[in-house]
Amino acid sequence: MGSTFGRALRVTTFGESHGGALGAVIEGCPPGLVLDLHAMQAALDRRRPGAGKLGTSRRESDRVEVLSGLFEGRTLGTSLTLVVRNQDADPSAYEALRDTFRPSHADYTTEARYGLRAWAGGGRASARETVARVAAGAVAEQILAHLAERSGRATPQIVAWVEAVERVEVAIDSATVTREAVDQHEVRCPDPDAAAAMETAIVAARREGDTVGGVIRCVARGVPAGLGAPVFDKLEADLGKAMLSIPAAKGFESGSGFAGARLRGSAHNDLFLPDGRGGARTDTNRSGGVQGGISNGMPVELRVAFKPVATIFQEQDTVDRQGNATTVRPRGRHDPCVLPRAVPIVEAMVALVLADHWLRWRGQVGE
Amino acid sequence: MGSTFGRALRVTTFGESHGGALGAVIEGCPPGLVLDLHAMQAALDRRRPGAGKLGTSRRESDRVEVLSGLFEGRTLGTSLTLVVRNQDADPSAYEALRDTFRPSHADYTTEARYGLRAWAGGGRASARETVARVAAGAVAEQILAHLAERSGRATPQIVAWVEAVERVEVAIDSATVTREAVDQHEVRCPDPDAAAAMETAIVAARREGDTVGGVIRCVARGVPAGLGAPVFDKLEADLGKAMLSIPAAKGFESGSGFAGARLRGSAHNDLFLPDGRGGARTDTNRSGGVQGGISNGMPVELRVAFKPVATIFQEQDTVDRQGNATTVRPRGRHDPCVLPRAVPIVEAMVALVLADHWLRWRGQVGE
Amino acid sequence: MGSTFGRALRVTTFGESHGGALGAVIEGCPPGLVLDLHAMQAALDRRRPGAGKLGTSRRESDRVEVLSGLFEGRTLGTSLTLVVRNQDADPSAYEALRDTFRPSHADYTTEARYGLRAWAGGGRASARETVARVAAGAVAEQILAHLAERSGRATPQIVAWVEAVERVEVAIDSATVTREAVDQHEVRCPDPDAAAAMETAIVAARREGDTVGGVIRCVARGVPAGLGAPVFDKLEADLGKAMLSIPAAKGFESGSGFAGARLRGSAHNDLFLPDGRGGARTDTNRSGGVQGGISNGMPVELRVAFKPVATIFQEQDTVDRQGNATTVRPRGRHDPCVLPRAVPIVEAMVALVLADHWLRWRGQVGE
Amino acid sequence: MGSTFGRALRVTTFGESHGGALGAVIEGCPPGLVLDLHAMQAALDRRRPGAGKLGTSRRESDRVEVLSGLFEGRTLGTSLTLVVRNQDADPSAYEALRDTFRPSHADYTTEARYGLRAWAGGGRASARETVARVAAGAVAEQILAHLAERSGRATPQIVAWVEAVERVEVAIDSATVTREAVDQHEVRCPDPDAAAAMETAIVAARREGDTVGGVIRCVARGVPAGLGAPVFDKLEADLGKAMLSIPAAKGFESGSGFAGARLRGSAHNDLFLPDGRGGARTDTNRSGGVQGGISNGMPVELRVAFKPVATIFQEQDTVDRQGNATTVRPRGRHDPCVLPRAVPIVEAMVALVLADHWLRWRGQVGE
Repeated sequence: MGSTFGRALRVTTFGESHGGALGAVIEGCPPGLVLDLHAMQAALDRRRPGAGKLGTSRRESDRVEVLSGLFEGRTLGTSLTLVVRNQDADPSAYEALRDTFRPSHADYTTEARYGLRAWAGGGRASARETVARVAAGAVAEQILAHLAERSGRATPQIVAWVEAVERVEVAIDSATVTREAVDQHEVRCPDPDAAAAMETAIVAARREGDTVGGVIRCVARGVPAGLGAPVFDKLEADLGKAMLSIPAAKGFESGSGFAGARLRGSAHNDLFLPDGRGGARTDTNRSGGVQGGISNGMPVELRVAFKPVATIFQEQDTVDRQGNATTVRPRGRHDPCVLPRAVPIVEAMVALVLADHWLRWRGQVGE
Repeated sequence: MGSTFGRALRVTTFGESHGGALGAVIEGCPPGLVLDLHAMQAALDRRRPGAGKLGTSRRESDRVEVLSGLFEGRTLGTSLTLVVRNQDADPSAYEALRDTFRPSHADYTTEARYGLRAWAGGGRASARETVARVAAGAVAEQILAHLAERSGRATPQIVAWVEAVERVEVAIDSATVTREAVDQHEVRCPDPDAAAAMETAIVAARREGDTVGGVIRCVARGVPAGLGAPVFDKLEADLGKAMLSIPAAKGFESGSGFAGARLRGSAHNDLFLPDGRGGARTDTNRSGGVQGGISNGMPVELRVAFKPVATIFQEQDTVDRQGNATTVRPRGRHDPCVLPRAVPIVEAMVALVLADHWLRWRGQVGE
Repeated sequence: MGSTFGRALRVTTFGESHGGALGAVIEGCPPGLVLDLHAMQAALDRRRPGAGKLGTSRRESDRVEVLSGLFEGRTLGTSLTLVVRNQDADPSAYEALRDTFRPSHADYTTEARYGLRAWAGGGRASARETVARVAAGAVAEQILAHLAERSGRATPQIVAWVEAVERVEVAIDSATVTREAVDQHEVRCPDPDAAAAMETAIVAARREGDTVGGVIRCVARGVPAGLGAPVFDKLEADLGKAMLSIPAAKGFESGSGFAGARLRGSAHNDLFLPDGRGGARTDTNRSGGVQGGISNGMPVELRVAFKPVATIFQEQDTVDRQGNATTVRPRGRHDPCVLPRAVPIVEAMVALVLADHWLRWRGQVGE
Repeated sequence: MGSTFGRALRVTTFGESHGGALGAVIEGCPPGLVLDLHAMQAALDRRRPGAGKLGTSRRESDRVEVLSGLFEGRTLGTSLTLVVRNQDADPSAYEALRDTFRPSHADYTTEARYGLRAWAGGGRASARETVARVAAGAVAEQILAHLAERSGRATPQIVAWVEAVERVEVAIDSATVTREAVDQHEVRCPDPDAAAAMETAIVAARREGDTVGGVIRCVARGVPAGLGAPVFDKLEADLGKAMLSIPAAKGFESGSGFAGARLRGSAHNDLFLPDGRGGARTDTNRSGGVQGGISNGMPVELRVAFKPVATIFQEQDTVDRQGNATTVRPRGRHDPCVLPRAVPIVEAMVALVLADHWLRWRGQVGE
């Protein structure tokens, strides 16, 4: 069941790193949407390893095929199935790992859970799994645009970027940052100096057969007030789950996060001001656009911490399947840093959460 | 739907701060358990405001009543219903808030979501809601003990404590800390000096009508390897959702968290060592007991950031329901710091996640 | 999990025949509804055993209490909890059944499933469980009225009646039958002659310590076209599940049912005619208002077969918990025929299914 | 959401009659099963239109491809994806139906539900959708065999057959009937005389451009006692939902069904006898193997009524999308009777329900 996400918009993904294909079945999509397949492909292209120096050498065209749910260009409202075929699978690089557990990978735990694993390329635990998320997220973005249009609102803008790599960190203005600006640099940080420094850090680590982690920040502007639910399905709880389900994510902050925990209430509270249209806005946004688990109309702001990639090209101590001490020195094709490619994944998961909660809201309250 | 949590062990909670009662219906509980009602009551008593100087003055006895699912002391395996009656509800303190939104509270967003709200005491958004979580978590702990016993394992030990309040922070040895040690101090930090400093900080803030936030750390020792699922229901994702659904939580870390994002892979990876029983353990635990979203048998470690309580006893700018600028100065009974009372809530939610995943695992894989 | 029903409108019930209370938590209810508690109580009163000669002698006032989800008379949109306390529980009559399985009851199977059972009065398997369904169904009817009003439609009318008892059978005009007409006779058949004959049959069976079964028919008029979903959640599939989950139900028909299976397509098809408002109606209604699993705007028609009550006051062969042959002669208070009291239960379950699908539809498609 | 079925074993299907492919994603499958792909293909072949005179002329090879979840022949325990490509799609036959609603089809209701439809061949509402069910059901049968083996039981035997076509009806001994005997005759009735008469009826109807309905009976022998849950997820309720979700199904009976409703309790009750192994069996099986919604170890018996195929090759009155009266005379390729091909579909759905409930049981109670 671990491969299904969402309630009113429900995505079930499938596929292993070196299996036949990856994909997603989306249920609950509103009918009649003219699906923009170019936008979907563009989203997948953003996730693909680039031709640059920061990513894996695995080459996949990641062409998305719509197997069901679309008729004459429009969504039918029934199961929408997206498939991306694997092309450049090369299990041979993993033969040596058949009986050995890579440190800080899912090899050992997958066997503990299931009693076996697809040892080629991480199988279901591979970051390649996220291709299905990005495809589904691209649909979710179009659903958000549809819902916004139907209710006379502007389309929400979801923008993520790399805020930190290793010890390089930069503050970006979340009110104005755009995907275009983010994509100016291969590392997906919109600040030229920081981007250069991050790139330097990644290249340095790669040179030493090592890897780096970092932090991605994301903002969703134009989210209407009222998304989320009290108690367990708070918007932050669902966003947090979404982010922490991304491979290598180990931390999540909403709004002020850990830093906010050091403040006093008088310094942390966001005061309400009239918004001039009969409603309210806040003068600051330490809440990150969410109060009591429900969006308040201000930008939704979050941060995700990613650990360094576990696959380093150095010899490491480990054990084999029989429990004997051994060493491993992985081969295969791996990113020295997942952050740049995780940017569209973060955006996709945010889009899925927002579209799900918007549809839940519409169903319960109407418009 | 926002009031249901879990899949194989499913908890549905209900109740408002100043309504008739709070409670939970638990589905999926194994049958035949001799339910220890004293342990459940003890858990609720830990969450109750103490007689000390740190908590609210609201006095609730929080007696738990089992309405269904128990017969001659044993669980039937069908809906187990727990109810706690409200006794000291005093809506009069909230009359002034009927038309005014308290800053950084759920007042405004609840109206945006539902078009109305129970203005007395925060209604469903009140931290009083967590009484149902603690009652359900006490059942989950007993389920964990049952599952451990049936599979010949030691019972998992879940211990949370206050690691930081405002700027006071302390490192505690997670390998040995106990609930007894934690409960030695009203602030629920097991280190005497840190506890004293935290208490001083809280009292100082209260004196100024202000509030403080902080960080809770939690460890679950004795969690078997194999709990969690790849992709969306990673153990960290479900733990993160559980924690971020607690009122005032704004951040979550699993294992090394945000600090780990600054390390290189070679410094972050947890090397495997033979455990002497044919399996493996890791020499370090930066993974926080979870790799690839599945537990690896090492202690599960997490941290939760709580913002300062939004209700401060100072006059603040806000707007009313008509969108006019006004000010508010809350009355009512509130904690100046939720951390001490959030400790058993964090433990309860961890227990619910672990019991749910253990039951899911048993169902799919058998034992 | 067997105690939760529905997706967008989700009801979780609890309680045993001789436990403390029965009840339901309803999630997904639209907010702001002025809940008519008198209507809810009236529904429960219809299910209660009457003062007449056809029912059990157990006396329960079945007062419904709203524990949560209601504020100043309006639904909050969060968990709505309804509780009915047991008052006239008398487990003593069941002491003899502690170790003996009553034929065609749930005693044996409950132990096979759970390893234990609440032997007093059938526990969770008792028909008394349906009090929670009727309470929840009364809320569902008000949700239907709300949804109809918001979309400018007439409120759907759900009417069930006893069509057959033992071998007495009668055809009633489903286009005009009303609850008032149904309630004219204790047996809940609107035809005076048939009602008298049914009553005679029931009394005759009771006199011999025996019981009878029968058939209930139900119509829902004013259901908008478009409710239901293709594939698994066809409206008939969900209605069928709802009906077959009622204690003692063993058969279900939608529209022409088993009789329709004998017809040719040319005799069975419902031809479309212009409805004079730009849409269509059918000249006949063998489809029972559902085609391809989705409502077509015609009256939804169904029938449910109930087996005779298993508790007969005659000595019967059976086995005890040790597997030894023995005999049993039940005591306790039981209806000789469940049909009259099952009428409001059928209506309640139909209301729950329709409200759930209407909310699902609104969420996915909007209005 | 209408395309997902089951809880512990969850199947999500996709695909339209004339789209690219049909398929299913199965979640919750136990890991490590050596999947018998030949058995899966054989199940699909049983559903395919034969070379005989009773079926459609559409020719599909229905080759099943496993896209994910299988590694070196074993199930991984993660999403198992099955795909069958459409090959002989011929939308041209449906051009005339673009704007016209076929009587008693899903055309009108699909547009009412979604605002559009895939007019080619019924789209998602086509009986071709059931190819995914049969593929998933073949997996469920292998899961049942695995669960039976692990618990030292014989594998459950699920056998369905055509009991009636139009007015031809035959009683078959459910204790001994086999799939081999059923498959002796193209019409899938194991009695030679009845099979011949049924075939005659079908051919006669087809000759007149007409269609016939009928009844399928199914038995599941070797189902352990204890499957099913009280209240809403009674085994009969889930079996009923499963059956009524099959295209053209309009009626369902468990055990004695509608006939049993005419009996008295003393004539209907199944008396318990010692089974000689410390447990119980019943002397009769009017309960159809299910009491109180839970299996009792006796054969599970059910019947499903299918209406005659709606597509008749005769001119019929109908309306167009603008609400104008018109006539329609379908072309396309259609069975004159769905019963023979529905036999493996019924078996598949029974297998899915039983495997789901067995996994639920194992998870909650253990073994």
